[in-house]
Amino acid sequence: METRHEPVARLKELDREARHLAHAAAVISWDQQTYMPKNAVEGRAQQQALLEGLHHARITDPEVGTLLAACGSTEAEPSGPAARPEIDRAFLRAKEREYRLSTRLPGSFVREMAELTSRSQAVWAQARADNDFALFRPHLKKIVEMTIRMADYLGYEEHPYDALLDQYEPYMRSSEVKRVFDELQTGLVPLVAKIGAARQVDDSFLHLDYPLDRQEAFSKQLMVALGYDIDRGRLDTSTHPFTTTLGSDDVRITTRYHRNLLQSSIFSTVHETGHALYEQGFGEGLSGTLLAEGTSLGIHESQSRMWENTIGRSEPFWTHWLPTLQEIFPEQLSGVSVEQFYRAVNKVEPSFIRVEADEVTYGLHVILRYRMEVALISGELKVADAPEAWRELSRELLGIVPETDRDGILQDVHWSFGGIGYFPTYALGNLYAAQFFHTMERQIPQLRDGIARGETGPILEWLRENIHRHGSSLSASELVRRITGEPLSPQFFLAYLNRKYGEIYTL
Amino acid sequence: METRHEPVARLKELDREARHLAHAAAVISWDQQTYMPKNAVEGRAQQQALLEGLHHARITDPEVGTLLAACGSTEAEPSGPAARPEIDRAFLRAKEREYRLSTRLPGSFVREMAELTSRSQAVWAQARADNDFALFRPHLKKIVEMTIRMADYLGYEEHPYDALLDQYEPYMRSSEVKRVFDELQTGLVPLVAKIGAARQVDDSFLHLDYPLDRQEAFSKQLMVALGYDIDRGRLDTSTHPFTTTLGSDDVRITTRYHRNLLQSSIFSTVHETGHALYEQGFGEGLSGTLLAEGTSLGIHESQSRMWENTIGRSEPFWTHWLPTLQEIFPEQLSGVSVEQFYRAVNKVEPSFIRVEADEVTYGLHVILRYRMEVALISGELKVADAPEAWRELSRELLGIVPETDRDGILQDVHWSFGGIGYFPTYALGNLYAAQFFHTMERQIPQLRDGIARGETGPILEWLRENIHRHGSSLSASELVRRITGEPLSPQFFLAYLNRKYGEIYTL
Repeated sequence: METRHEPVARLKELDREARHLAHAAAVISWDQQTYMPKNAVEGRAQQQALLEGLHHARITDPEVGTLLAACGSTEAEPSGPAARPEIDRAFLRAKEREYRLSTRLPGSFVREMAELTSRSQAVWAQARADNDFALFRPHLKKIVEMTIRMADYLGYEEHPYDALLDQYEPYMRSSEVKRVFDELQTGLVPLVAKIGAARQVDDSFLHLDYPLDRQEAFSKQLMVALGYDIDRGRLDTSTHPFTTTLGSDDVRITTRYHRNLLQSSIFSTVHETGHALYEQGFGEGLSGTLLAEGTSLGIHESQSRMWENTIGRSEPFWTHWLPTLQEIFPEQLSGVSVEQFYRAVNKVEPSFIRVEADEVTYGLHVILRYRMEVALISGELKVADAPEAWRELSRELLGIVPETDRDGILQDVHWSFGGIGYFPTYALGNLYAAQFFHTMERQIPQLRDGIARGETGPILEWLRENIHRHGSSLSASELVRRITGEPLSPQFFLAYLNRKYGEIYTL
Repeated sequence: METRHEPVARLKELDREARHLAHAAAVISWDQQTYMPKNAVEGRAQQQALLEGLHHARITDPEVGTLLAACGSTEAEPSGPAARPEIDRAFLRAKEREYRLSTRLPGSFVREMAELTSRSQAVWAQARADNDFALFRPHLKKIVEMTIRMADYLGYEEHPYDALLDQYEPYMRSSEVKRVFDELQTGLVPLVAKIGAARQVDDSFLHLDYPLDRQEAFSKQLMVALGYDIDRGRLDTSTHPFTTTLGSDDVRITTRYHRNLLQSSIFSTVHETGHALYEQGFGEGLSGTLLAEGTSLGIHESQSRMWENTIGRSEPFWTHWLPTLQEIFPEQLSGVSVEQFYRAVNKVEPSFIRVEADEVTYGLHVILRYRMEVALISGELKVADAPEAWRELSRELLGIVPETDRDGILQDVHWSFGGIGYFPTYALGNLYAAQFFHTMERQIPQLRDGIARGETGPILEWLRENIHRHGSSLSASELVRRITGEPLSPQFFLAYLNRKYGEIYTL
């Protein structure tokens, strides 16, 4: 027995150091995005590069490979009393995956990619500002070429896109995304069309003047009420809201405040709180190991979007919270009914910009990008033709065509940093959330009545028990099957949208 | 030539990595003292220990020793055109010193000391809270024993205390401290007695209610006006004010606010601004090397105390700033004259607590500790007899005797973390400051008139040129001799005090 357990213990020790380095890097990065003075950028980049290098050296240490080999395959495990504890099997699977992904790319390739994407991000920002795709084109071309090489290094069975997707949504294949997205598109396109033909809702009162300090006070009250442990985190302000984990007892979120856009800070805060509740909810036994992480970006996004949209944009939620908000903003919100408020925060309007999209059209923005990416990676689409392809897809999916590349192919930062394969996780999050919520509604009695009384504790408890505590010890598909008894399907999300927006827009 | 320069280049490369790690550790520590959530302490300690370990491994890397040996002694350098650039000689001297100090202590000793002082700090805090020296006594005994061993490891020529002092005030010997402190004591004791017999000044208006947000606004205005570059740093709040360098373009300070103690935030801010101006002023050529550091704690303290006391507590300073402060606090300060304000912020009163002491009695608090430390280290004083020795020295130096050990030997944290040899630097700072200022006053025309007009730019320029830009490439004694033409003497400080307080207290 002992000889079989020793390498795992040593692996855990090495892993713990790597986690500490990753968390230290997170502290430094959090500071950079919140409080760092303007001129410190250059020095900070060097510190960050050093810490990332040390982290990379730890996770690719040949000793890790030797130890993993000594542990043997987690698939060929004996069962019965001699079996390894389940948690160790999960640990070894995750460690093997991390080692594989981080050692398959040659150092020279990683450096070349880092240099390319570092330059490309600056060029992209300039190109977007100038609405000049030609400027960005050679960089995107090179990034696509490098990404295809990367997929080859990483390895795949069916399609090179699988290797890219797997970095963000472990073990998921492009063929499954295609199946799910095709079904999703089929359901979304007619719904958007119907809403477009209906009478628009009035959200003008959300655009009055809302002083920032009072918005902040509401955000803080809200996140704590939803179960966020403020002794293990904090709320700050940044240009782009984010959640970051600086240690097992230090999960911070940020939000942003706009004077004439009340919903922005509220739903950013609830969204990030959803991410943070996941990170604060990993089981004790996972603490300090690489299992104390979200199991996939899609599952992470399911947590943020369930709190933001399914719960936070529901009518019972505002039955409870609107009176509080009206106390904070009496002049702006007096006379607004729960129904009016609920309808206003669920306004649907096709637009060009993904990050401003409502929950109905959002999925179509993602499908557009996914189809572009697969076409680029498989070589079916040339970068030179990409802007036109974007416009065509936009017409097909959203029914509108952007007049500029700034509102089209240049709008997202992702490709400039090499993040091809990332976009699908955003839409998968909505689908996971709806499917989980469907099961949850059957298991928690009077769920909506509870929300209307501000009692979201049972929801958090359910998420803790079924999702959070597992960290990455169960994969996304394992979670979905265990919880809902079936594989991922977009029908839950479509049913949710049809019911909700059918009512709001009386379709 | 080339073979002689290569090892220096490699040393600089290794040094740069070590600095990045030290700065990363500083970011983490800054966060811990300002924004970190309550429950994150344990995880943060582990990150910190890991980064410190990595830093220590870098500076004690055997390669550093080999490279230093290859460079040869900096003392036996050829002169003339073949000579090494001056900056490289300074770099090698500092690197040699760092390597020597960090490698002479055996790893087992360092670990033992770390464990001891970690435990001792908690015990000290408890002992102080309970006013129970007996609780702390065995720990202090062990710390003194270990410190004597440490001095042996570090090495010294005249007195074991030299080795301890040298950690904080490089190249200074205890015999010099004794000479200077004896002279200082001779001058201070009668001055304190004379002030004690004079009529006390009225500072009651400083204890009215001063809202914290307006105190903060004034602090920010003040620090920037003194030349602090806010694009290369920031101001935050912490329990104990401090300055920390997170990168060559990231020097942050903290202060603290008390509603009924207006002077606390003002002078903490000016004090830390003094430290920060030094750190922001290192020459470009030193950036990213270990020469971009204060040359000694005493010199660092000379910068903070010159701004805080010599300048910040001067009459012309308040000629300029009082009207601004009165605009911010009209109810509290209307009718207060510059003279009244000046006298109030210079109130002298012997007290038991060093950190609350005025600039006249402060030096006596330090002399007391210095004499205790030398007696403990040389074995003349037993730890069991230390509380009584403290009381006797307090009577001799300050003319008052603390009634409890909490107000006596238990008041400072320093000994519990093993910081024996540190205290003298606080008083040396005052002496350096006065000696520098004496020279500066002769070299900058109408210095006091400028201060009264809020024009402190020429002072900062003088400090940049004569002190800041050199970083640690010149030692403290080299700086003093180059700038003032003579060795360190307490007579400048005594003359300053006698003139200033003679006037305030009409002695």
